[in-house]
Amino acid sequence: MRLSKYFLPTLKETPSEAKIASHRLILRAGMVRQASAGIYSWLPLGLKVLQKIEAIVRDEQIASGAQEILMPTIQSADLWRESGRYEDYGKEMLRIQDRHKRDMLYGPTNEEQITDIVRHAIKSYKDLPKNLFQIQWKFRDEIRPRFGVMRGREFLMKDNYSFDLDEAAGRHSYNKMFLAYLRTFARLGLKTIPMAADAGPIGGDLSHEFIVLAPTGESEVFYHKGFEDFDAMGEAAVYDKDLQPLVDRWTSLYAATDNKHDAAACPVKSSDLKTGRGIEVGHIFFFGTKYSEAMGATVQGQDGETTPLQMGSYGIGVSRLVGAIIEASHDDAGIIWPEAVAPFQVGLINVRSDNEASTKAADALYAEFLKAGVEVLYDDRDERPGAKFSNMDLIGLPFAVTIGPRGLETGIAEVKNRATGERTEIKLSGVVKHFAKP
Amino acid sequence: MRLSKYFLPTLKETPSEAKIASHRLILRAGMVRQASAGIYSWLPLGLKVLQKIEAIVRDEQIASGAQEILMPTIQSADLWRESGRYEDYGKEMLRIQDRHKRDMLYGPTNEEQITDIVRHAIKSYKDLPKNLFQIQWKFRDEIRPRFGVMRGREFLMKDNYSFDLDEAAGRHSYNKMFLAYLRTFARLGLKTIPMAADAGPIGGDLSHEFIVLAPTGESEVFYHKGFEDFDAMGEAAVYDKDLQPLVDRWTSLYAATDNKHDAAACPVKSSDLKTGRGIEVGHIFFFGTKYSEAMGATVQGQDGETTPLQMGSYGIGVSRLVGAIIEASHDDAGIIWPEAVAPFQVGLINVRSDNEASTKAADALYAEFLKAGVEVLYDDRDERPGAKFSNMDLIGLPFAVTIGPRGLETGIAEVKNRATGERTEIKLSGVVKHFAKP
Repeated sequence: MRLSKYFLPTLKETPSEAKIASHRLILRAGMVRQASAGIYSWLPLGLKVLQKIEAIVRDEQIASGAQEILMPTIQSADLWRESGRYEDYGKEMLRIQDRHKRDMLYGPTNEEQITDIVRHAIKSYKDLPKNLFQIQWKFRDEIRPRFGVMRGREFLMKDNYSFDLDEAAGRHSYNKMFLAYLRTFARLGLKTIPMAADAGPIGGDLSHEFIVLAPTGESEVFYHKGFEDFDAMGEAAVYDKDLQPLVDRWTSLYAATDNKHDAAACPVKSSDLKTGRGIEVGHIFFFGTKYSEAMGATVQGQDGETTPLQMGSYGIGVSRLVGAIIEASHDDAGIIWPEAVAPFQVGLINVRSDNEASTKAADALYAEFLKAGVEVLYDDRDERPGAKFSNMDLIGLPFAVTIGPRGLETGIAEVKNRATGERTEIKLSGVVKHFAKP
Repeated sequence: MRLSKYFLPTLKETPSEAKIASHRLILRAGMVRQASAGIYSWLPLGLKVLQKIEAIVRDEQIASGAQEILMPTIQSADLWRESGRYEDYGKEMLRIQDRHKRDMLYGPTNEEQITDIVRHAIKSYKDLPKNLFQIQWKFRDEIRPRFGVMRGREFLMKDNYSFDLDEAAGRHSYNKMFLAYLRTFARLGLKTIPMAADAGPIGGDLSHEFIVLAPTGESEVFYHKGFEDFDAMGEAAVYDKDLQPLVDRWTSLYAATDNKHDAAACPVKSSDLKTGRGIEVGHIFFFGTKYSEAMGATVQGQDGETTPLQMGSYGIGVSRLVGAIIEASHDDAGIIWPEAVAPFQVGLINVRSDNEASTKAADALYAEFLKAGVEVLYDDRDERPGAKFSNMDLIGLPFAVTIGPRGLETGIAEVKNRATGERTEIKLSGVVKHFAKP
């Protein structure tokens, strides 16, 4: 993409309403624009990141055996009356009346809606297990939306729901998601720690939240230093074996958010206890028959007896992750995208667009990048070199390749690694090969 | 995918509320489930088709030079007060108050929202032209939703918006979309005819709708028989030349929907006039400065003068297309998917899952299909052959491959073409190669 044609409205000034790093940077980098309080439009650069996160989340869901569906955003209030949550949910639920005065709502979560689908479709133990996921917009009418896409009102969430015949099978489905979540966040370039959590309005007595470690995270977290040796990338995507040992291992060490941590009662000796800041990016729940009993979602077992389905639900904040990744990976100059979610892999800078040789070489390199299938953003604008460099640092592409008259004299380009700041000189003829995937 | 594990709740009975073929078939094939009036959940088979249509629409938008964004579903009423459409829009607009009693709405279209984004971001003629598209859910509170996903209340739409400095450039943007739409519908396997249309509440005086010819379409259409020789697949995706001759050619022949057709005044002699039925799947508008003037979206021209942006908007009913394609392509036994949007390319049927040799051969073939990257749905269930065949016809995959003890004796499988009904015998060893893309 040529920057001269790209819709990338970066900001020179930091908007005053942005109190945290990710909010400042996501606005300054022209990734989103606020439409109204807690509601954002995703501009081309931001949407690219959102779609890359979505693709990784989807990929790991499918690898775990979950099947994708898509439920509507607008739900009937009647379903929520069946589960008893319509009155309970409070003012965070956006309540709507349609033209016929029927009570509707913009789904903040989908336990009722999925239970309704499944109770009509699944009748026999032979249809189990099932795990259905969706990536869909939700709405929670926060009283004071803030922190940009980290706590918006309209937000993109991956939610899924498991259905099993008995508790042991339900527990296995829960463990599968535990593994899928570890893998998902690791692929996104994040260091996460699962922590035991309260189930809150979703219900049930088994629940974990996944906390990303980020220096500017929203809350303080406490964890055993042993977690530093844990590596989720090493956990294979093998889902048909007993996963309890894996879950036990990942929950064997102490970890707690500040609202759960009690310094006096902490079982870890202080030399082993680390503190840091974290951001919740995922939350999983096993709540057994809470919704299936209330809503009559039953199956006939092998013995002919009718039994309510065992259910769990699982959420990942997809749009929130854009903010969380920035919180975990930025510096004073801007964002530092992990390669897996970077909107482009390479930024190409022509430092002298008024110089014919420089422009010719940069144009040729750009064409070569496109041909090799490398995602490249080409700054071909008529701007000062300094403005181009700081813009590239701000939007945080993993690598910047610079072409200018001086390098051309000896046939080289400069490659800068955004994360390390390291600069290397590469022969022009070898630049694209350096980045092309084999 | 093994059918024994797939969430595919097909129906034996036709639901009584379904009055048209696509509504009946989409429900019977387990593609969607109604959540409430005019609001649907997309189940795995239906979502696969929706996503394939979405991918083709996206691909042709990007090829035309449009850039993808994503605006929120919930908008502030204030923007619509600026354009004057808040009161005008009537009861089809789903109006909402949030917890702070602010007037919001679920977007039925996005001219106001995009104009707001662009008026803040684009200041100079140098930033033009721009064409921004999104694929996002919309809501129109139809008084009597019907015909399934063909006229739902919550529906998926590709909408985009072009911004230009002057009318000639705006007209060129309009023509680009005209070409992109012809190409998009042709790739979806549809025969469409562009027809001059009224602009309605969107505004402007230049507008075309794209009508799919389908034997069971919603309205009667009249067109010159010369259209039968037109082939949109032959129109190259070349957007930087003058496209007016192409648009003139495609609009040179008479074509009109029944509300515009006047038999007495029709310029075509009766022997050249064809009648058929059609479904509107796309609509394009050029309305110049209607929104940019009302909302103050201006740029500075090369001469330093401030001028309002020239705008057009363009829509494709993505979820509606699922219904339209079924209307255009089905028979008494079920759906007949065009290959480009088929949820799976091949259905694999083991006619005797109780027969060890047959199951072994079918399992092996399934593994081979997966390895070759062919999208295959494998009916491995313990069901009667007749039920398997009629189920495969119902869901309408382009090809069905049948394995059974009789064929195995001579080492062959039977391949049935869903569209033509033609059956051929293929050596087992050559089946996968027959379908694998090179």
